[in-house]
Amino acid sequence: VEEQAGRVIIAGFGRFGHIVGLLFRSCGVFPTVLDLDPDHVEMLRRLGLKVFFGDASRLELLHSAGARDARLLVVAVDDEESSIRIIETAQKHFPHLQIFARASGRPHAYRLLKLGVNRIYRETLDSSLELGADALRGLGFRAYEAQRAARVFRRQDEATVRELAKHWATGTDSYLAAARQRIRMSQEAIAADRDGFHHVADAGWDTESLRAEFGAPAGPETPGDADPLTP
Amino acid sequence: VEEQAGRVIIAGFGRFGHIVGLLFRSCGVFPTVLDLDPDHVEMLRRLGLKVFFGDASRLELLHSAGARDARLLVVAVDDEESSIRIIETAQKHFPHLQIFARASGRPHAYRLLKLGVNRIYRETLDSSLELGADALRGLGFRAYEAQRAARVFRRQDEATVRELAKHWATGTDSYLAAARQRIRMSQEAIAADRDGFHHVADAGWDTESLRAEFGAPAGPETPGDADPLTP
Repeated sequence: VEEQAGRVIIAGFGRFGHIVGLLFRSCGVFPTVLDLDPDHVEMLRRLGLKVFFGDASRLELLHSAGARDARLLVVAVDDEESSIRIIETAQKHFPHLQIFARASGRPHAYRLLKLGVNRIYRETLDSSLELGADALRGLGFRAYEAQRAARVFRRQDEATVRELAKHWATGTDSYLAAARQRIRMSQEAIAADRDGFHHVADAGWDTESLRAEFGAPAGPETPGDADPLTP
Repeated sequence: VEEQAGRVIIAGFGRFGHIVGLLFRSCGVFPTVLDLDPDHVEMLRRLGLKVFFGDASRLELLHSAGARDARLLVVAVDDEESSIRIIETAQKHFPHLQIFARASGRPHAYRLLKLGVNRIYRETLDSSLELGADALRGLGFRAYEAQRAARVFRRQDEATVRELAKHWATGTDSYLAAARQRIRMSQEAIAADRDGFHHVADAGWDTESLRAEFGAPAGPETPGDADPLTP
């Protein structure tokens, strides 16, 4: 696989980009990294990764980093405005690039969705769900049940963000009404799934696809491919 | 399960604590929340959660929130010093509490380990691995392989943090030497696991426990219970 992997660029090598880069490297994929921090640059050279020092939203820098022949751009910078600028430049000049973007929170995610970026990773979402699922186990929930609750929650939350993004630009009232409705739907869907889980005969909301997901060894859904959740 | 769940306190209801609180709520566990931000407090009341406004490191506030009868304390504040103060107060006055703590990054995690806190969740670790695993799929890796690489990486990284925490206090040279050694070991372990994965007959590093983990529907390891990884 690695040979066909093509070139990968990571913009930003702080806490987030660092982990992505080391994971890639452990799989034989050697990314080119763009970063503003000279300390990071030194560390990257020691790791044997190709580094370009500078602002990743500058067209020349993306060119130098090989964006024309790259397949994938990971935008892992921690500054929201910088993230938006990099993506706008990349979309304009290198529309073939797959973009995977870190987001600080929901408002940032809404902006990314508006730009047409689908692979969005809110930076604290997964660790808070990890903590939550482990804490549920600490309270006596079974491992499978806690893990499943977190998985269902994540799907609902992703769907909610995609739905609310449509209302976000249109004004506060429409947004708040939609937010309230989504919260109701989420709670109902999670309750229905839990009932379905406790009483296996009752195939609740979206239970089939979750069963398939949990039964198979496969990984998580690709956010870009996620079905809108319509309970 | 819920009836025996006992009481849960969440300190901090920003991006991180919010998700933990909503996950609990979706499972029928209604936490008591401590927060400094009046905006959060208003939102929490609307969600029907019990809220105490103030500094969660104050003994009186923890008392009012029911820390004596609680089972579990989630420390989800985003400020490192505040997190340490809350934990020191809780450990001193409510030693029976299970503590689950958010950490900003490695240095914060080292401090928490030194305090004896074992359930530590570095706030961007899991989302960066989610992005990384999805991006590997975008490059053509199979879902299972990408997910597994991320899982192996996470275990190694957790073990590295626990190992380096011992050297962290002892001074820079010892720390750097240990860090270099762990990086070497991690890369070797991941390579060995990948070989084991590609050539199934070759049972590589820790492959048995990973197989069990992936084969069973169960959730993630509890960090507090994780074996130190000694390849």
